[in-house]
Order: sequence, then C-alpha cells, then structure tokens
Amino acid sequence: MPIPSPTAALVDLGLGLRHDDLPEDIRSIARHSLLDWIGVLLAGWDDPAVQILRAQATERGALPRATLLGSAERGDPLDAALINGSASHVLDFDDAHLASRIHASVVLWPALIAVGELRASSGREALTAFVAGLEVQARIADLVGNDHYRRGWHSTATLGSFGATLAAGRLYGLEPGALRHALGLAATLTGGLRALFGTPCKPLHAGRAAANGVNAADLARRGFTAVEDIFERPDGYPALVSGNARRDLPVADGRWATRELLFKYHASCYGTQAPIEAALALREALGGEVPAGELRVEVEPQYLSVCDLPEPRTAMEARFSIRHMVALALAGRSTLDERSFAAETLADPGLAALRRRIRVAADPALPRANARLSAAGRAFAADASRPESDHAAQRRRLLGKSAQLLAGRLEPAAIDELQALALAIETFDDLNQWTAALRRLIGRVPRIPHHKDSEP
Amino acid sequence: MPIPSPTAALVDLGLGLRHDDLPEDIRSIARHSLLDWIGVLLAGWDDPAVQILRAQATERGALPRATLLGSAERGDPLDAALINGSASHVLDFDDAHLASRIHASVVLWPALIAVGELRASSGREALTAFVAGLEVQARIADLVGNDHYRRGWHSTATLGSFGATLAAGRLYGLEPGALRHALGLAATLTGGLRALFGTPCKPLHAGRAAANGVNAADLARRGFTAVEDIFERPDGYPALVSGNARRDLPVADGRWATRELLFKYHASCYGTQAPIEAALALREALGGEVPAGELRVEVEPQYLSVCDLPEPRTAMEARFSIRHMVALALAGRSTLDERSFAAETLADPGLAALRRRIRVAADPALPRANARLSAAGRAFAADASRPESDHAAQRRRLLGKSAQLLAGRLEPAAIDELQALALAIETFDDLNQWTAALRRLIGRVPRIPHHKDSEP
Repeated sequence: MPIPSPTAALVDLGLGLRHDDLPEDIRSIARHSLLDWIGVLLAGWDDPAVQILRAQATERGALPRATLLGSAERGDPLDAALINGSASHVLDFDDAHLASRIHASVVLWPALIAVGELRASSGREALTAFVAGLEVQARIADLVGNDHYRRGWHSTATLGSFGATLAAGRLYGLEPGALRHALGLAATLTGGLRALFGTPCKPLHAGRAAANGVNAADLARRGFTAVEDIFERPDGYPALVSGNARRDLPVADGRWATRELLFKYHASCYGTQAPIEAALALREALGGEVPAGELRVEVEPQYLSVCDLPEPRTAMEARFSIRHMVALALAGRSTLDERSFAAETLADPGLAALRRRIRVAADPALPRANARLSAAGRAFAADASRPESDHAAQRRRLLGKSAQLLAGRLEPAAIDELQALALAIETFDDLNQWTAALRRLIGRVPRIPHHKDSEP
Repeated sequence: MPIPSPTAALVDLGLGLRHDDLPEDIRSIARHSLLDWIGVLLAGWDDPAVQILRAQATERGALPRATLLGSAERGDPLDAALINGSASHVLDFDDAHLASRIHASVVLWPALIAVGELRASSGREALTAFVAGLEVQARIADLVGNDHYRRGWHSTATLGSFGATLAAGRLYGLEPGALRHALGLAATLTGGLRALFGTPCKPLHAGRAAANGVNAADLARRGFTAVEDIFERPDGYPALVSGNARRDLPVADGRWATRELLFKYHASCYGTQAPIEAALALREALGGEVPAGELRVEVEPQYLSVCDLPEPRTAMEARFSIRHMVALALAGRSTLDERSFAAETLADPGLAALRRRIRVAADPALPRANARLSAAGRAFAADASRPESDHAAQRRRLLGKSAQLLAGRLEPAAIDELQALALAIETFDDLNQWTAALRRLIGRVPRIPHHKDSEP
C-alpha cells in the first residue's frame, strides 16, 4: 500500500482552486469575511499592544511596501501581516471556524493582502487565496486532531500558520514543490500557547501566524528548503503536537470548509453567543417585556468554566459573563458597543438586578455552541454553531455590525464607501488600487483613544 | 506549602549575576565561546540558505542599527540576530551544552550582540549576559525534561529562545517583572521541529531562537505583557511540550552550567567526536602508523542510527560517518578542513580502503559521547562528554580551529587581530567599538563561494 501523502494532496487542493470555479455562495462568504475583518481591525487598532507592535516596526524603518490598514501607513510586509493580524484579533470579535478551532480572517487576510500588494495580485486571486487557505487549514486541523487544542496549543497561531502559508504561497505563484517546503517551514515557525489567553499574546498569535505564512512562502520562493512531507512523516507536525493525529484522512473530500465559517454579532466570548440569541428570541416573542422571576440559561458544560463570571467588574470580564450579555440582550442594549462593557454600564442597577435573576446551568445533552433560555414557563433555544444560510441577511447583519464598530471613527459616508470597497474586492485588477482606496478613507480616521473601561 | 515559582527564581538568577562575581574560569569559557563562535560564523556565512535570509533582509531595507557579522553590513537588529545565528549553526560545528541539548553560542551571542549595539552595552556586561543566558536556559531544560527533545522538539530552537530572551533582557535593563513577561512571550514564539534536521531549517532554528529572544525582550521592554509564571502554571510551557516536566527543581543550586560547555574540534556530528579522539590517541601511541587488520569502534547504541553511514557520498554524509572521520584521523588528515569532505577526498583509494577495515558496533555500557577503538590487540578510549579542564590548552585548540576555518578568508595578520578582539571583549566599554573593529576586519573578507562538494 502506498504511503498516503496528505502534504502533496493539500498543496494540490490549495493550488487547484480557481476563481471561476468557486460557487457563488463561497465567494459571498469570503466577501463577508473581508467586510467583517476590516471592521474589527479598525475597531481594535488603538489597542495599546497593537501600538507597541507599530512602534517597533516604525523604529525598524523598513521600506514602505505594504499597508498597515489601521493607520494608512505603509511598512514592511512581515510587519504589516503581523500588525494587521494582531489588531483584528484584539476584540476577539472576528470570524471563526469551529470545527478546526481557527479564527480564519485574522490569519488569512493580513497575509494575502501584504503579499497581494507586493505581487500586484488581482482581487479575484486574493479572494480565491482566502478560500484556498481556509479549506487547506481546515483539513490540516482534521489531520492534527482535537487533542492539539486540548493539550494547550492555540490553533489560530499554530494551524493558522499553514493556512496563511498556503494563501501567501498562492499569491507568490509557488510551484507545488516549493509550497510543500513552505508548509514544512511554517511547521517549524509555529508557536502559540493557550496559557497566554487573556493577555495581548492571544491577538499576537493571529498576527504571528499571518507573518509566519508570509515568511514561509517568501523563503520557499527564494529556494530555502525544508521537507516536503511535514504532515505524514513519523516525526512530522501532527504526530508531534497531538495524541490523536491522523495520516490517512482524505483531502479531496468535496467539502467546503468555507461554508462552515461563523461570524460573531456580539462582542463577547463564543460561549455567550447562543445564550444572547436565545435572549433576543425571548425579547422578540414577548414584545420587549422581561418576564418576572428566575431566568434559567442552559449551555454545554465546557462553557461553565469559561464564561460563567457572575459579577463582571471589567470590560474583559463582561465579555466572558453569560449573565451580563443575556441581561444586555433582554434589556434591549447593544451587545457590541463599547459602552455596554463600560464601568457605568456594569454598575447600572437595572442591569445588575437582571443579572442576579439569571441562573446558568450545564446540560451535557446540548450540542456545541447551543443554549436554552427558560423563563415564565416558556423556553427559547438558540444554535450558534451553524452559519446563516440566507446570505442577504448575513450581509445586512455584518453591515450593521461594521457600521456600529466604525461609528465615531469614520463619517457615515466614509463607512459606506469602506464597506462597498470590501464587498467589491473582486472587481480590482491590482490589489494596490484597492489598498490605496482604503488608505484614502482610513487616513481620515481620527486618532482617539478607545476601549478604556473608564470611558463611556 | 507555597507553590514553587521557578519563573521568578530563574529571572532572579539571570539578573543577579555580576561580572565582578564571575569566577575567572567561567569568564574564560565565555571568551572561548565567543572566539569559537566568530570562526564558525564566518566559515558558514556563504551558505546559500544564509544568503537567502540576507537577501530577504536587504529587500526589507531597514535602518542600519546592528551588524551582520559575516558581511560587515548593518541592518535591523532582529535580522542581525536571525542571520548571525543561522550562519553560525550552518556547519553544526559550534559549541554545545549536552545536558540541556542546546547549542549555546549560536543563540546567545547573536541576540546579545544585536541588543548590545543598540544599548551601547559594555563588553563585560555582554559576557555576563552570555553566562546568565546559558545558566538560565540549562535550568529551564531541567524543568522541561528529556522527553521534550525525544518527542521531536529541537531544543536549540525552543529552549534556546528562553536563554536568548534572558540575555537580551539583561542588556535592555528589564525589571524582573518585565523579564518574567518576556519569558512568557518567548514561550509562545517558540517552534522548531527535529523533523527539519538535515535541512537549512536546523541552522534557521538557531537564528530564530536568537531573534525570538531579542523580540520578546524588546516587546516586554515596551510594556507588552504575557504571563509571569510560564514555567509553573498547569498549562505552561514545560507541561505542554514534555511528558516528564518538573515544577519543583531548585534554580539556585550552586551549579555553573557554563562549566559544562563543550567545543567541537572536528567538523562532524557529535557522535563522531569521541571515535575521532580515540583514533587520534591510537595514532599518537603508534607514532602515526596504522595497524593492520580490523579496526573496531564501539559507541553508545543511539549513535548507530545517526552516524554509522558506511560509504559517504556527499560532504553532509561524510560528517555523519564515523568510518570516514576515524579514517581521516588515522591517516593524519584534517578533521575540519572542507577539503576533507570534498568528493575527491571521499574517493581517495587509501581512505576508502581504511574505511572498509573499520567496524562500528554498539556498547550499551558506554557513557554518552564516549567511544572505544580496538586494533592490533590494543584499545583506546575517548570521552567527548567532558570539557577540557586545562583552559590554556582549550584556548590553543580553539585558536587553531578558528585559524583553519578562517584561512583563505582573511590574511593571517587579520586572523590574529580578529582572535585577539574576541578574547578581549571585556576591555570594551561600548560594544559598538568592538563591532566597528570587527567590521573593519571582516570588510576585507573576499566574497568567494565555499562549501561546495565539487570544489577542493
């Protein structure tokens, strides 16, 4: 029996995709991801950790060859991938692929925009590279197995490096052999410990994965060699980092991992998304009225240890408090506006009273990212594990989210223009025209401090 | 019982060392390491993979703030650490710390010279930072345990990142708290798979570790936070990457890991060093005569799978062939000159005949890095696991090694000057004066291709 060769099959899958062959719904998801990514990136830009990375790059004084999207400045492509990637993951409000436990947009778009500018790639090719990166990294996650994340690796940092390498390698025009070596290089550049969750290192992981991808593809392009079989050799990546790694999974399986991409509409932990949706369903059913007595929220047991903070005292804690997020939703307050996480909101007596009436419990029978809210004898279920199938509705929700994130940073007309640019990427023959248009808009963003707990 | 806090203890150990308190033999080892490091760096500089990294940095076009030692150019400090580190590990001829399985000089010197130039550190402080980095990373290796390397991690890449962070952090003048965060940052930046041995990624690991150290210390200096307890928390670095990690080892144990530093005098795999020394002992005892009949070489079993290549066909294979290296030694040929690994030497009928008379066998009773050579009824043992205790002899051997590596690259007078500069680092009040003097010498190195199998 021949030894299966997933590395070669992954490269063939990633290089084989063509824009003309992408189903329309896949292209639509990719456009939505770009729209969403730019919003969370700009909203996260002023974070102190991002500004540290930017200061470091400024001191480096490299030639201006790639766009730092939040500032409209230009710098080194590796720095641009690192900073754009980190900034877009600061709020933890970006899209996610649950099955592979990888945040997709924050590792792929930064890498392929940096390389796309260098190579004057078309918007169609950039969008196709996004889909290719997502499809390939989802299959690598399957090879690596669930044990990887459970052990303590942050998959967005580790497995995301492979997707970014594939995306960057496509735009560099790498031959299959060089791309196999690039994946070997990416493996040895990975890092990313979950122990760093809750610190600025978590968003840094996204940026590093994007920069690792650019670097691995660029080195392979220049003839730097690694190994061509990093996913199947006995001491290869999956075997090293997981106890349930596989080597025999089919890569060409007809699946579109892109169709599984999930967007967040509430600026809080993924475990709070379904409870919030259930609360919104209750609010709609009762015409905005909040029932008296206990409100019982049931979630899968894994979330109790992560987002059951009963009395949040900081914005970060509030984002991990099912009670606070459900209270916001029941009270008709925004679940993404910074003010909903500010100290004065946390201290609001009405919200505090509502929080105290909410009981969070575990139900092992609930599927992943599902929740049930019971109140006044009625129950409302929500499922945040499935993407929206109505793409027009998805686009409307993402336009609304992005507009709220950008309000106060850009004039309404500029927000409209920015959103239109994101959705129109496939009409650009050279990504430099697209980034130049973005820079003209973003250059108008006022530099004001954001995301401080003490400010409304 | 209080939870042990190795992270804080490691930082205290690393920051607590003062040049005045270093024993003279420790300072001597550090100077020898620097002397040796510059030789292997310059000899490895023209390697194609190093030149790829250099081209990448040149295109980056960053401000000239740190010295690329092999070319006398200046560039970005992170690039300098990466390129100097990679170049010095290309020949795999640099010093090693066996107990921790870390190549010491190739991760520490590149990091501390890059930061030392930025900070105008004194040579005394640089040398002390080298010792501090080595001492700390040896203890981290103890915490992580042997299983780390066995699983497939390349300790020079992973654990070396911590030593480089400590060394760089000292020169940056980090407070203990910031340095604890820097070690957390370093943990999440690590990578480095043994699966990449035999490819240019192995030397890249040394360069990346050095650059990770500079980066982690620089980010922590700017206020970027991670966690302060990366070595003791349940999901911390040792637990994640090793099955026999410890959290309770004493850090302040009175040991000098620096005293365990080993130098290579033969340009081949570490498993060949003791067999070569045994062959040299035989040659000396017999006055240069080679006995007739079978020559039996016994080594520990682990080396049979690594360096028992019977008929080497390339320079790389020759460096992993006990038979070829022992034949060279018995025949009175150099064990480090490139010509000893060239195609015409491999084809030399006399050497080939000698190789065929050598039998390599395993003896599980032999300690690590030991060998026994039996011929004509006599046996010669060698132990390459212990450092030379006579430092004058060590210096003479290293001066000879370095002179042979640099011959053809520099005039004899320049070699003398370079060696004197390396040994005199403690007399410089500003590392920039030291690197400027090095650059004047190295600027005279002719750019000729080296290390090609086909050339004599």
